[in-house]
Amino acid sequence: MTQTDQIRTDVLAAASRAREAAADLATRTREQKDHALAAMADALITRTAEILDVNARDVAAAEQAGLQAGFIDRLRLDEGRVAGMAGGLRDIAGLVDPVGEVLRGYTLPNGLEVRQIRVPFGVVGIIYEGRPNVTADAAGLCLKSGNAVLLRGSSSAVVSNTAIVGVLRDAVREAGLPVDAVQLVPGEGREAVGHLMRARGLVDVLIPRGGAGLIRSVVEDSTVPVIETGVGNCHVYVDESAEVDTAVDVLVNSKARRVSVCNAAETFLVHADIADEFLPRALAALREAGVTVHGDKRVQSYDGAVVPATEEDYDAEYLSYDIAAAVVDTMDDALTHIRTHGSGHTDAIVTRSQSAARRFAQLVDSAAVMVNAATGFTDGGEFGFGAEIGISTQKLHARGPIGLPELTSTKYVVTGEGHTRG
Amino acid sequence: MTQTDQIRTDVLAAASRAREAAADLATRTREQKDHALAAMADALITRTAEILDVNARDVAAAEQAGLQAGFIDRLRLDEGRVAGMAGGLRDIAGLVDPVGEVLRGYTLPNGLEVRQIRVPFGVVGIIYEGRPNVTADAAGLCLKSGNAVLLRGSSSAVVSNTAIVGVLRDAVREAGLPVDAVQLVPGEGREAVGHLMRARGLVDVLIPRGGAGLIRSVVEDSTVPVIETGVGNCHVYVDESAEVDTAVDVLVNSKARRVSVCNAAETFLVHADIADEFLPRALAALREAGVTVHGDKRVQSYDGAVVPATEEDYDAEYLSYDIAAAVVDTMDDALTHIRTHGSGHTDAIVTRSQSAARRFAQLVDSAAVMVNAATGFTDGGEFGFGAEIGISTQKLHARGPIGLPELTSTKYVVTGEGHTRG
Repeated sequence: MTQTDQIRTDVLAAASRAREAAADLATRTREQKDHALAAMADALITRTAEILDVNARDVAAAEQAGLQAGFIDRLRLDEGRVAGMAGGLRDIAGLVDPVGEVLRGYTLPNGLEVRQIRVPFGVVGIIYEGRPNVTADAAGLCLKSGNAVLLRGSSSAVVSNTAIVGVLRDAVREAGLPVDAVQLVPGEGREAVGHLMRARGLVDVLIPRGGAGLIRSVVEDSTVPVIETGVGNCHVYVDESAEVDTAVDVLVNSKARRVSVCNAAETFLVHADIADEFLPRALAALREAGVTVHGDKRVQSYDGAVVPATEEDYDAEYLSYDIAAAVVDTMDDALTHIRTHGSGHTDAIVTRSQSAARRFAQLVDSAAVMVNAATGFTDGGEFGFGAEIGISTQKLHARGPIGLPELTSTKYVVTGEGHTRG
Repeated sequence: MTQTDQIRTDVLAAASRAREAAADLATRTREQKDHALAAMADALITRTAEILDVNARDVAAAEQAGLQAGFIDRLRLDEGRVAGMAGGLRDIAGLVDPVGEVLRGYTLPNGLEVRQIRVPFGVVGIIYEGRPNVTADAAGLCLKSGNAVLLRGSSSAVVSNTAIVGVLRDAVREAGLPVDAVQLVPGEGREAVGHLMRARGLVDVLIPRGGAGLIRSVVEDSTVPVIETGVGNCHVYVDESAEVDTAVDVLVNSKARRVSVCNAAETFLVHADIADEFLPRALAALREAGVTVHGDKRVQSYDGAVVPATEEDYDAEYLSYDIAAAVVDTMDDALTHIRTHGSGHTDAIVTRSQSAARRFAQLVDSAAVMVNAATGFTDGGEFGFGAEIGISTQKLHARGPIGLPELTSTKYVVTGEGHTRG
């Protein structure tokens, strides 16, 4: 058997084991799942030293490879971060189990009882970059929603992820749940991911979490259904009727609270009728927050520090202390700009006009529309979901933060007394 | 420009027009949409002669090409069938508008109001085979759910579909809605479909409706998200505790009511403890209904007319007067058989045991599970949806009959008073 064949065989074998585990997991009660989540949290705490020990090897390799300091910081675990992972699992145990929820239920005229019931997907594949804590989060959310998970983290974290998954699996086994409910995808490199993406029938859904390149490649090459997450070119539109203090606060908070996240604002648009009042204060506040503004000619005319914007700036997801800006003559121009350049993640309006708010909310075709609120609120934690696996920017199945209910499918159960169809 | 480039340009231009139309349609009220649906129905009636005239050309071409009589019958329109299409559109006008429904709504501790609201997908592509009446159904369902539709029927019906779409578009225009909300995909042949499948960003979802080959090719080649419909290898499991009369009725009705539909039974499994009582009567009843049984050795032992079954029989979606059959020693064996061979469409149990019913409903991983009811009840009309565009056998987004709500996405609208995130 060639190495290529071996990788394929290993990936499909892992997926088959996951499928078996999923069939078992689907029948388990909330009590059993919460017990396992608590055991997983306890095990992370008990075996922290072991995890930190191997994590140091990932960190050393990353340093040796000359990777960026920010990346290495995210890769590095310490006692607090492992405790945070354990706390996350305990929080998930506290969430309502979505499985079994009756979404619709009614009796047909012929007496048949129809129930649409939430059920687990079965096998979920999660492909992610960056922090090893995603490993525990993803395993916990999938287990709670009754899904077996196939985890594929970044190659830089493979030693840490292997250790974390080992600890979690031991706890799952001891808690009496099927151990293959939590697995790493075997095999290194892109080839293994390719086999995962083509394991239609074995894997029910793939969720890529990471940069635009990763997500695009999964969306284009996968025959397994995908929930696309996270590219965010978010806009703040300051309407002519906006309260200026509010608009400045919402804009600066949307941009500068954290710049590396998908719900950060990347462009703002201001109505021409309020530009004279709004822009000098907004540009000063952004400068004070360390933000470089890339503006059109009209924005530039207010402040010499504004950098000329290109079309690329309006398409950019900077994830940095940069923001694009333009003055628009009408709200329709703002809507057209957002439709042309937006990524369908989150767009905000600041306005005092009820009718402008209503129209903007109706016409902006994004996962979330904020009215007089910062873009950063698009977040599973903020929405009260307790935890999220990412933010979906696609329209199929889940749009917005992906919490436990979004990790489920449904099934109709129809009950009769020997009913036959005429 | 080569012909290939021209087809691509034409398809993408149609999709872009659909996008524009969808942005307009998303803002229209139920009143406006229902008015257009009524106008579409009226136009079909008024212009019936014109439609029948061109349909005769499709029928003549199909006859000349020597296509099967059943196919030609489905292709042929008459006054009654056109009236049926018009009636279908009026029925859709009578259904509740899914757009605007608030699925979740709550106020966060910080005072932010979160609303998850049903919104149209935007642009829906429907690729279908067979009957021209699907053209009117699909157009009506998409328009009612606020979606622009790109329709791609079979090449044998292209003249009829062009005429029907022409009539519908005239009515849409006269009703004051955007005419490009209803379009045929331009260009003949598979190439145009290929461009449609890769129009990610312009087309929001594709729904293939037809044979297994069509569906597989769309699922594998599409970068646009797909809702997979319809392959049905449906099972009837007769539990040891089944009431035998009920079991025979449910089985025969599941198989023989209509054999060409995806919700017809293709295999039955019977518990060994009831085989002696059940099989002689079931085999006689099936024979009387004209059904050939392909059975394992144990089934064969009851009746010389039973044909030996191969593994292929258990995987087959016959869509004919054939059914595979096997005796199982336990319900677990039945569950394993269904997991191995089923297509996740509809599976039924006949039982008097509450606990067997509960266990079967929980462990069978299909879009619908029937308890003491025939498989044929998995149907949008039977479920009270009023109309359906197909039956989804995938787990993402929609599972089971696809009615109006399944043709929508959602959007979060979050309203504050200048809320910023800490």
